Formats: sequence, C-alpha cells, structure tokens
Amino acid sequence: MISEKMSALARNNSVIRAMFEEGKLLAAKYGSANVYDFSLGNPNFPPPESVKNAIIGVLSDTSAANIHGYMPNAGFPEVRAAVADALNARHGTEYASKNLVMSVGAAGGLNVALKTLLNPGDEVIAVAPYFVEYGNYVRNYDGSLVVVPARAGDFQADAAAIGAAVTARTKAVIINSPNNPTGVVYTESTIREIADVLRAKSEKSGSPVYIISDEPYRELAYGGVRVPWISKYYADTIVCYSWSKSLSLPGERIGYLAVSDECADSAQILEAAAIATRVLGFVNAPSLIQLAVARVLGEEPNLSGYAENRELLYGGLTKLGYECVYPEGAFYLWVKAPGGDDRAFAEAAKKYNILLVPGTSFAGPGYARLAYCVAKETIERALPAFAKLAEELRL
Amino acid sequence: MISEKMSALARNNSVIRAMFEEGKLLAAKYGSANVYDFSLGNPNFPPPESVKNAIIGVLSDTSAANIHGYMPNAGFPEVRAAVADALNARHGTEYASKNLVMSVGAAGGLNVALKTLLNPGDEVIAVAPYFVEYGNYVRNYDGSLVVVPARAGDFQADAAAIGAAVTARTKAVIINSPNNPTGVVYTESTIREIADVLRAKSEKSGSPVYIISDEPYRELAYGGVRVPWISKYYADTIVCYSWSKSLSLPGERIGYLAVSDECADSAQILEAAAIATRVLGFVNAPSLIQLAVARVLGEEPNLSGYAENRELLYGGLTKLGYECVYPEGAFYLWVKAPGGDDRAFAEAAKKYNILLVPGTSFAGPGYARLAYCVAKETIERALPAFAKLAEELRL
Repeated sequence: MISEKMSALARNNSVIRAMFEEGKLLAAKYGSANVYDFSLGNPNFPPPESVKNAIIGVLSDTSAANIHGYMPNAGFPEVRAAVADALNARHGTEYASKNLVMSVGAAGGLNVALKTLLNPGDEVIAVAPYFVEYGNYVRNYDGSLVVVPARAGDFQADAAAIGAAVTARTKAVIINSPNNPTGVVYTESTIREIADVLRAKSEKSGSPVYIISDEPYRELAYGGVRVPWISKYYADTIVCYSWSKSLSLPGERIGYLAVSDECADSAQILEAAAIATRVLGFVNAPSLIQLAVARVLGEEPNLSGYAENRELLYGGLTKLGYECVYPEGAFYLWVKAPGGDDRAFAEAAKKYNILLVPGTSFAGPGYARLAYCVAKETIERALPAFAKLAEELRL
Repeated sequence: MISEKMSALARNNSVIRAMFEEGKLLAAKYGSANVYDFSLGNPNFPPPESVKNAIIGVLSDTSAANIHGYMPNAGFPEVRAAVADALNARHGTEYASKNLVMSVGAAGGLNVALKTLLNPGDEVIAVAPYFVEYGNYVRNYDGSLVVVPARAGDFQADAAAIGAAVTARTKAVIINSPNNPTGVVYTESTIREIADVLRAKSEKSGSPVYIISDEPYRELAYGGVRVPWISKYYADTIVCYSWSKSLSLPGERIGYLAVSDECADSAQILEAAAIATRVLGFVNAPSLIQLAVARVLGEEPNLSGYAENRELLYGGLTKLGYECVYPEGAFYLWVKAPGGDDRAFAEAAKKYNILLVPGTSFAGPGYARLAYCVAKETIERALPAFAKLAEELRL
C-alpha cells in the first residue's frame, strides 16, 4: 500500500541495511573490538564540552517559553545575526540576519533549497562520486539529477564537464567540498573555473544556474588547506551548512542556509526558503540547539584527532600497496579497489572483519570509501587485517 | 527564479504575514498589553520544570556522543520502547519499539506519513474547517486534498459525507481531534461511524483507506472528556503525535508516528516511514529532546490553566451575544462571525485591537478562530474590547 517511490527506496535500502546487519552479526561473532567498521560518517570525537555548557547556559538564563516556543520559520533573529557576524568575521562577507535561514541540518537545508528552486523536470547537476541522497532529494521535487564525473586521478570537479552538462532545464549545481566520499577539497582555481563556466551559461540563457554548496565538512580541512567561500567567487550561491560534523552534533539536526544579497533573486529565495521550511514540515530548526550553537560559534572541530587518523590510515594503507587519494578534508579515504571491482573488494574485506562502502554506492565504481572518524585504536588494530587482505589480493 | 509552487505559496503567505505585521504595528502603537492577540497557537504556559530537569539529567548521565550522535532514522530504540510502554499503559494497546517512528513534530510526521502513502494523483480527505497546512503537505507529494464539511452546528466529522467522498484514488482521511480550529472533540460514536464507513469502502475496493490521526492536542481535553484512541476502532490508522502543545515545546520539533501491527501493511509502512524520514531530510527527530521527553512521559499538560481561559472567554463572549462552539479540547474557540462575513468580523475586531483569524483561512467561512492559549489577563482585558465590538455589531 506504500507509494511506488517509497517501494523503490525500500528495495534499495535493504542492500545498505543488509550490510549494516552483517556488521552487527560480525560484531556479535567476533566482538566489536575485532570488527573494523569504516562504513559510517558518525563522528567519533564527542562534541566539545562548550556545547554542553552552552545548552545548560541557555536553560539557566533564558525563559523556558522563549527557549522552546515558536519563532519565525527562518529561526531566531538573534541566532541568525550571530551566525552572520561569525561568517563575516571569518570570510569578509556581509551577511545579516535576513540572509540566513536556520535549517534541520544540511539535509534539511538541501531539501529546502531544492523545494525553493525546482519545477518538475528541472535538472540539478552533481559531481560523481557524490553523496547518494542527492538523487533522492532532487526527486522529492520531481527534478532530475544529472551526474558529471570528477576529473580522473585528483577528483577535482571538472568545470568543462559541468558546463557541457548544462541545459535549458539546469537550475542548480551541487558542490560538496570538502568532499564526501573522496576527501578532496576543491582548489580556488577549480571554484573559479566552475564560476566562469556557470556565469557564461547563465548570461547566455538569461536565467541563473545556482550553486548549492553542501558544506557539512567546511571546517574539516587539514594542514592549513583553505576551503574557498564559494559565494565570493559566484554570487548565485546557496550555502547549506551543518554543525553535524564540526561540532559532532549529527543527531541534533542543526544547520543553516546562507544567501547573500548579491545572489539573483536573493530576497525571493530567502522568503521562499522560510516558507519551504514550514511547508515541508520542518517548521523551524530545533529551538534549544539553535540558541546553544549561537554561543559556540568560535569553537573549532577536533582537527588534530582526525588528522592523526588520516596519517595513520593513509600511511598504513599506501605502505601496504593500496592506492589512495590523499584526503585534504572531511574524514573519508577514497581507496582504489584492487582489481577494479569495488563490490568484490568490499566482500573480500569483510572476510577480515573490515567494513567499507563500495564506491558504487556513491556513483564512483572502482573505489571504496573508508570513514576514518573512528577511534585511533580501530585503525591500529585494522592495519594487520588490511595487510592480510593485501596478501590475498596480491598487492 | 523560485519554483512555481513556491511562488504561489509566497503570494498566499503575504496575506498571513500582513496580518502578523499589522499586529506588531498595533502593539508598537498601543503597547502590547493593549493588543489582544488571539491569532497564534503558541502555548502560553511554559513547559513543566520537569522538562528542564530531564534535559539536564540527560546531559549529566549520558555520554555526549550518545546524546548528540546518529541513531536509527526511526529514533532511539529505547525512546521508542518507552513511548510504546506509556501508550500501552494509557490505552491498553500493544505497541513495541518497532511500531514507532520518532518525528520532527506532527508536521514532520504528517509529511512522512503522506510521503509514505501517496502516489501522484492520490486523494486525501480532510474535514473542514481544517488546519490549512494539510493542503500544502498533501501537494508536496502531488496528492490532492478533498475537503468534506463537518456537520453544521456541532462540527463533528460527518461519516456519511466522508464515505461519499471516497473514490478509487482515496488513500487516507486526516482526522484531527481535539480539533484545530473548532476545539471540538470527536465522540466515540463519530469515530465508530467513520470506522464503519471506511471499513466498508476498503473492503469493497480491496485496498485500505488509512486514517491519519493528527493528534497534537490529544491531552488537551477538558472536564473529563475522553479522546478515543482511534486505532482501537480502526486498525488502518497512522497516529501523528507531537509534544508541541502538551509540553509547550513547539520550537523543539518532537513527536512520533505510531502504527499498530493490526494496520494493513504495518511493517512496510513503518520501514518506509523511517526511510521517508531520511529521504525528506529530517534524518531523525532531534536527539537530545528525544531522550528528554522519554523521561517525562507521565507529565500532564497545564489543563487547569487552559480550562480557566476557556470558561472566561466562552462565558464572556456568549454573555455579550457572540455565538460560540463550546470547546471540549485544544485551546481554540470557534466563534460565529456576526453578519456571516468572517473577514469583515476580523477587520472590525482589529479596530478594538483584537486579533483573530477569519475562518476562511481554515476553509470555515462564517466563523473566526480565537486561540486562548494566552495569559488570563489578556482575556480579562480583552472582554471590554469585545463588548465595544459587540455594540458596534449590534449583538
């Protein structure tokens, strides 16, 4: 009796769930310490203590009715003003409260942005490999996802390929840097090239192609690598941010949309995004956590911990003969499947209690994703298992 | 550049917003104490102190990673088990953890339920007057809302009219009792009649017509009035609950879907609802507040406060000659527009600084909604203004 769209989703879901269930079975059989689960992007480091203090601070100095009551669908004006100030200080931008719509995480924000922009049949371009939910989000609004491969080798977005994929129906390009699943950070020149291409296309057609910048990993860049603030290069940008990864709050569902005054139809988009927030049933981003994150905007993620994991895993695997893309951001390692078959690679790994996600799940066959947002010990204990796997695979 | 659907919504929105802005102007001009705002369903009573204690309790006895991390899309299993136990104790039902999907309020839950059920073109029946967002929610999934009037006079749902509106495309009937905007609680016999009619229709067509029971006001029933637990009368029921009103937590976006084992395709619906939660971008109900509400499931709303307001407003207005539906639940009073024109009534009221919502906004022309979830003093101070209004309207 469920809808046809949901039936199809349930069929696909069972593949992923089967993997999850298998992981639980392995853990039950061998003990969870002997199962090396690199499959999930669930941050291992707890939120900073300041988050707890901020929540308790809000509870003690703000009236309960104000903490937990309704506010405008776009979020508390003072929270949006604080976020705008923090962005301006960091990026030299000129956001104000009105340029922000608080969202139910980046996933909620992406849905709000797509609901705001898409007519049925409109196209949205994504760069493969990509976070698999993009397709579902776009189809929620009867749009169609057009997939353009990243550049072979370095997995930077390919501006020329994006340009070639733009049609009269193209409404937006989703950019995700630092990238899930590759860990690649798009360079300034990549962003400039994409901006130039899209500007030319928009001018030619007379209607803007928006960039939707999905940025849950913005602060997760290592070794001083800079993550360009895209709307400084391309005005028609909708930023979708989330504190899920930077503050390890993925369960709380808190993020924002940012649209600058320079963006085409900025005021209309911001008004529509607030209405979409209401109409899609989000109503508003959760209130207590809105007030809490506004008090910890200077907080930095646990970069050193993830950086340590990155060195350990990348160093360990390359030494064993695995080919990996050196990740400059996020907490994912993109590993070439020895022999080229990523599903076979994942199956072989499972024999050694290693859980990783075949690249096919991200429209990136021939590779696999390892999430290294795990305890350091998991990596340390996993390396001998990877060594045995390398032996089996004759690396 | 925004989508056509959103353009239409923005046009409609501006009417409501104009009213809101006008209210703010009135407050600035006359002082907010001299403006009697009965327009919003924002609970006046703060959440019980136990909610704050529960949040602080969770923060102090649970690890931060567990509080704020990912959990299954359906919500924490232990939270769902606790909710199931509380429902079973109260209603003699047999829910288990698996029968519940935690939701981003009832608005999120309704969207999840509709996404789960609707194919494009499917019909959903609502009983007018009704919460105006139902239409938007149904159209999110390309369904169409079929509106059936409630019985004249007592505003009970009209089972025969519902039955007559069922077609081969009818997927669900939305029931909302205690009702927004009328304050009416559907009697056991109303529920039985609806159940009988829908059972007959479902048997005839071979495919179930589901009841989606929108229950944010479940606990808000006065004078011992019982609110029947609908799935005991009709198995094919999806309950959408929210703590927004019962615990005064509308900003937190926390509720649940409940689907019993007896519901047709129960397992499929529950699986699809969890997937829809993910795919629509909710991902999961906010985590900290999930854990907190599970600790205050025995808490009762501030019924006596609302009951006092109800008596004061109903008593005061009827004495002045206004015709009102005596509300047995929720915190709304449904008042007949003297002369029959509800917009003119709202305009006339505004001259006396009284803000109320014309029934037309709920597909209930000829009436107006007064939300009495306000401070008692607001009602006390408003009554003389209502008296002057009555004089002008020659009641």
